[in-house]
Amino acid sequence: MPRNQQIILDNRPQGEATASNFKLLSSDTPALAEGQVLVRHHYLSLDPYMRGRMNDAKSYAAPQPLGQVMQGGTAGEVVESRSPKFQVGDKVVGMGGWQEYSVVNVEPPGALRKVDTTHVPLSHYLGAVGMPGVTAWYGLVKIIEPHPGQTLVVSAATGAVGSAFGVLAKVRGCRAVGIAGGPDKCKYAVEELGFDACIDYKQHKDAASLSKALKEACPDGIDGYFENVGGMVLDAVLPCMNDFGHIALCGMIAGYDGQPLPLAYPALILTNRLKVQGFIVSEHMEVWPQALQELGTLVATGKLRPRESVAQGIAAAPEAFLGLLKGKNFGKQLVKLV
Amino acid sequence: MPRNQQIILDNRPQGEATASNFKLLSSDTPALAEGQVLVRHHYLSLDPYMRGRMNDAKSYAAPQPLGQVMQGGTAGEVVESRSPKFQVGDKVVGMGGWQEYSVVNVEPPGALRKVDTTHVPLSHYLGAVGMPGVTAWYGLVKIIEPHPGQTLVVSAATGAVGSAFGVLAKVRGCRAVGIAGGPDKCKYAVEELGFDACIDYKQHKDAASLSKALKEACPDGIDGYFENVGGMVLDAVLPCMNDFGHIALCGMIAGYDGQPLPLAYPALILTNRLKVQGFIVSEHMEVWPQALQELGTLVATGKLRPRESVAQGIAAAPEAFLGLLKGKNFGKQLVKLV
Repeated sequence: MPRNQQIILDNRPQGEATASNFKLLSSDTPALAEGQVLVRHHYLSLDPYMRGRMNDAKSYAAPQPLGQVMQGGTAGEVVESRSPKFQVGDKVVGMGGWQEYSVVNVEPPGALRKVDTTHVPLSHYLGAVGMPGVTAWYGLVKIIEPHPGQTLVVSAATGAVGSAFGVLAKVRGCRAVGIAGGPDKCKYAVEELGFDACIDYKQHKDAASLSKALKEACPDGIDGYFENVGGMVLDAVLPCMNDFGHIALCGMIAGYDGQPLPLAYPALILTNRLKVQGFIVSEHMEVWPQALQELGTLVATGKLRPRESVAQGIAAAPEAFLGLLKGKNFGKQLVKLV
Repeated sequence: MPRNQQIILDNRPQGEATASNFKLLSSDTPALAEGQVLVRHHYLSLDPYMRGRMNDAKSYAAPQPLGQVMQGGTAGEVVESRSPKFQVGDKVVGMGGWQEYSVVNVEPPGALRKVDTTHVPLSHYLGAVGMPGVTAWYGLVKIIEPHPGQTLVVSAATGAVGSAFGVLAKVRGCRAVGIAGGPDKCKYAVEELGFDACIDYKQHKDAASLSKALKEACPDGIDGYFENVGGMVLDAVLPCMNDFGHIALCGMIAGYDGQPLPLAYPALILTNRLKVQGFIVSEHMEVWPQALQELGTLVATGKLRPRESVAQGIAAAPEAFLGLLKGKNFGKQLVKLV
C-alpha cells in the first residue's frame, strides 16, 4: 500500500487565499474493496473555480469541505483493480482531488473515464480535451451561438478555456480577439493560438481605455463575448457589444476574493438587447461527447496546441494555485506528480 | 382644416427632464393627398421609453429629433379619408405623436390599425391591448418562459406593463409578486390585479432591506423577473433569484436621467446561472397578433381591468409625462384630447 500525500483545505480564506489555507497530510492508501480501483495520479488540474468553492458561501457548487482533500480533476493510471472494467495500466481521468492516489468506485459509471493517449497527451484531458475545453465549447456553441463573420472576444485568452475558445471560434469562421495579461501572452495568442488580435489589459488603467483598444481591434463591434474575468474587463467589453450580442458568463475571477465587483452600466444590456447568461459546464453533460470529439480532433490534428504551466510535486500545488488566481500561469495550470 | 396643437421637443434634458424641454405649437392640418387619412386623436400614450429617446445618445431607437413633434402612440378616429381602406368614423391606433391630429399614409400597411371597440375601450389599445401589454407578454412568454407553480416578480407592478404581466402570469398558474411605490398601489395590485403579494419599495431604504421583504414574499425564491426599473430594485431581486432563473430587462427608468446605475453583484448571474436578456417589443412584431388576441380576450372578459391615469388636453402632456417618470401615475398614463 503506497503512501499517499494529500492536500486538504485547513481553513477558509479571509479575503485573498493564501498558502496557510492548505495543509499537506500523508496517509496509507486503503485496501481495495470489490468494484474499486486504485489510480495513481500523473497530473492534477488547477482551475479558477476552486477558489469560489473555498468560500463558505452560496454558489453553484457546495463549498469544499474543511479538513478534506481539495477536490479537483486528475489524470492518471490504474495501478490496482478489483473491477473487470479497468485493467492495470489503463489511462484514466476523474475527480481524484489534490492527492497522489485515489480509490475510485467504478459503479455507477462516470467517476472514471478511460482515455486514449495515442494522439492526445494525457495531460490535455485535463485541459483542451477536458473540462476547460468543453467549457469553451458550451459557451461558444450553446450561448454565443456564433455565425461566420462575427467578431468574438474572450478574456483570459491564453488560459485553458480561452485558448480552446479561440481555436473553436476560428474554425467557425469568426474573427477571434483575445484579452490577456502581458505582451508575452498576447504574442502567443496571435502567433500560436491563431487569434486575430489580442489586447494586453495591463496596458490599460481603466475600462474606458481598454474599451477604446477593443473598439480598434473589433471595428465591426463584438457579437459574442466569453467572460472568464469580470470587473474592469466586462465593463470595457459591454459598450462594444453589437445589438443582440450574446455574453457567456463563465468566470469572474476578479471577484473571487470577495471584494465588490459591480457592473458599471447594466442598462447597456437593455439598450443593446443583449443576452447575458451564466453557466456551469458540469450541468450540461449531454454536450460532453460531441464537444470532446471536436476538441480531441483539433488537438490530434495539431490545430489546437495548448500550452501548459506545470508545477512539480503535490507540495507545489497550493503555490501554483495561488499563482493561477493572479494570472501567473501561462496556459493550463497542472501539477505533475509522476 | 382644423387647427392642430402639437408638442415638440424644443431642447434636450441636462439630467432630469423638465417642462422647459417641450414647446406647444399650433398649425393648420394640411389638405390630404390621395392615399392619406386624417386622424383625430382621442388619446395619446405616454410611456417611459420616451425619456430615453429625448437624449442624444446611442440607444435602441434613434433619438427624438429636436424641433419635431414628440413621437408616440395614439388612438383616435378617422375624420377624413382619401383611401378606400379607411372610412370616416373608423377607430384606429397608430404612432400619431403628441398632437391633436395626424395625417397618415395608409400604404405601406402597418402605420394605422383599425380596432374594434365593442368589447375593449379605445384607450386600452394604448395599454393592456397595445404596446405595453405585448411588452409584458413578450418578456413573460419568450424570455421568462414560465412554468406553472413558479414565482414571478415584476417591478412597476401597477403600471401598464406590470398590470398586464401580473394577470398573464396568474393565468399561467404562477405566483405573481409585484413591486410598486406606495400602499395604495400595492393594495390595488393585490385586490384588483390579482397579484399574490406586492411590496412597497418606498418602505425600504436600501437593496438589502427590499431583498429581505422579497424573500418573505417569495418563500420558494424567484424564478422569473420582469424589470421595468433598474437600480436598487434590480440589486434587491438578484440575490433572490433561483438557479436557472430568467430576467427580462424591459426598462431601467431609474437611470433615464443619465446618473450612474451600477449593478452591485453581477457575479450572481454566474453563480445562479441566470439568463438576463434585454428586449424591445417593436422588434418582435411576429408575436403581436398572438399576444393581442390573448390580451384582448382577458380585457373583454374582465379578467384584466387595467387602471388609467388620464390627463386632459394636449397642453397637459409634458407635466403628465414628467409625473410618469417619477411614478406619480397610477396605471397606464394617457392624455385625453376629445
